Amino acid sequence: MAPTMKLLPDDPAFERRTRESFACQPAMATLGVRIEQVQPGWVALEMPHRDDLTQQHGFLHAGVVAAALDSACGYAAFTLMPAGAGVLTIEYKINLLAPARGPWLRFEGEVAKAGRTISVVDGRAWQFAPGSDERKLVATMTATIMTVTGRDGIRH
Amino acid sequence: MAPTMKLLPDDPAFERRTRESFACQPAMATLGVRIEQVQPGWVALEMPHRDDLTQQHGFLHAGVVAAALDSACGYAAFTLMPAGAGVLTIEYKINLLAPARGPWLRFEGEVAKAGRTISVVDGRAWQFAPGSDERKLVATMTATIMTVTGRDGIRH
Amino acid sequence: MAPTMKLLPDDPAFERRTRESFACQPAMATLGVRIEQVQPGWVALEMPHRDDLTQQHGFLHAGVVAAALDSACGYAAFTLMPAGAGVLTIEYKINLLAPARGPWLRFEGEVAKAGRTISVVDGRAWQFAPGSDERKLVATMTATIMTVTGRDGIRH
Amino acid sequence: MAPTMKLLPDDPAFERRTRESFACQPAMATLGVRIEQVQPGWVALEMPHRDDLTQQHGFLHAGVVAAALDSACGYAAFTLMPAGAGVLTIEYKINLLAPARGPWLRFEGEVAKAGRTISVVDGRAWQFAPGSDERKLVATMTATIMTVTGRDGIRH
Repeated sequence: MAPTMKLLPDDPAFERRTRESFACQPAMATLGVRIEQVQPGWVALEMPHRDDLTQQHGFLHAGVVAAALDSACGYAAFTLMPAGAGVLTIEYKINLLAPARGPWLRFEGEVAKAGRTISVVDGRAWQFAPGSDERKLVATMTATIMTVTGRDGIRH
Repeated sequence: MAPTMKLLPDDPAFERRTRESFACQPAMATLGVRIEQVQPGWVALEMPHRDDLTQQHGFLHAGVVAAALDSACGYAAFTLMPAGAGVLTIEYKINLLAPARGPWLRFEGEVAKAGRTISVVDGRAWQFAPGSDERKLVATMTATIMTVTGRDGIRH
Repeated sequence: MAPTMKLLPDDPAFERRTRESFACQPAMATLGVRIEQVQPGWVALEMPHRDDLTQQHGFLHAGVVAAALDSACGYAAFTLMPAGAGVLTIEYKINLLAPARGPWLRFEGEVAKAGRTISVVDGRAWQFAPGSDERKLVATMTATIMTVTGRDGIRH
Repeated sequence: MAPTMKLLPDDPAFERRTRESFACQPAMATLGVRIEQVQPGWVALEMPHRDDLTQQHGFLHAGVVAAALDSACGYAAFTLMPAGAGVLTIEYKINLLAPARGPWLRFEGEVAKAGRTISVVDGRAWQFAPGSDERKLVATMTATIMTVTGRDGIRH
């Protein structure tokens, strides 16, 4: 529930910058994903289960879990980037460990290595019930994120 | 635009079975994804670009691309499974090659290896404009899919 | 340098069984990889840098790092399997974070989820100098491992 | 057995440059891997089965397959890079489809997307017997490769 390493952000306004960028993602609003906590190199998002985002067995669709976890990873890297830089997911891999039933999902991204151009971020998704201390790991991710300056990223 | 291998389905009713299962995924309807073609070991889905599914630069959110591509891969494996079996994505890896602008996206999944328990499926996502012969590759995926019989899959 | 979770092995002779199976891998002997520690759900391997296993810049070839890390992950899962079961790597993903210079490399695999059929294992590779407390993360891996009983695994 | 796309190399001396760099990898010589064919965006390597590179069941160790396939992918990207650039594998994912028995293994890497900084390469490994037309797919890979200019790559 908290970052395992203390990392120093390049930009002291990293939290405001991260929350503002997140707020500009219509897809996250559409899926009901909220940004909960922002630390240097670490971000936590949460969303409630929603019946219209399920697969054929009534569990949250893996793609929705992946979309939120990818965002958690991307923004974890974003916190360490210089002001003005953009973030681009080059690739990720996700392992789906258990069906995501809810009632809530939590997504944490933590930077494993912050590079000048390439950062590697680990993500973990849990389901939990508000008020309970228990949570169950439902997915793990590793994402490779690129720091984009100028218009480079669009072409990467 | 068509499968590269001829594969023999176990279940002659594979197409109806696949379309019916797809129709039971609320998440695909919510995201506007439709099933276009079903062949043994191969499935094509399509969706139009939608502004409420974008990231901060106005491109389709990578997570949405991944959700649809994961479905294409899962259902490609599903076509070769025996009647009554369920499909479970164990893991996938996606490379995002270019921003997904639309106006339409096409997602093709093709089985690379169909096993009794584990199948490996390659996925490719393109953007295209209806009426044009051009299309641009925006993402590639490799997914590991499990055949679920009885209640095994839930626990896998 | 130690497992983060306490896991209960199915087989009390897990350590002997794991060390004996490792000793049967000619490739590990050829590459100079040794098994150092075995805990339930967790294994540590080590190898010295070797000039004949380098790439064109004099660093340890990524494939050698991957081979050892894959073994660490596979045997971490193996510790939790019932006696008589075999272990099969279905797939893995590796991120190479820094060139592997040596003088020594350490490879730790830790089970993230142990399933009846499918286990997911996280691996980390570090370089270090004997006698020093410092170590540097050079690679991370996530591996999907299958428990093989009877002759199933060969066909998987 | 041949590239699926015609790609234009930046450097007309791409083949010589690629073969020379490959010859500087002691690990490939140690593992008995040879470079067979070089086309723009596409490279084929081959190696014979060797008993000292096996795992506990007598099959070629997955890590050895991965090492050779990673090299095929890296050099496929290298063919399209400008003279003087270096190649760095950021990450790869491999699916092991069947045990690698030999007697020979063939590894093909083909560029799916060549970018200025980041290239994505698909790899496939087959086993075959010299003189036979049959071959069996034993592994697939997707690798993310970085073009390194100056000394950047070492830090990436």
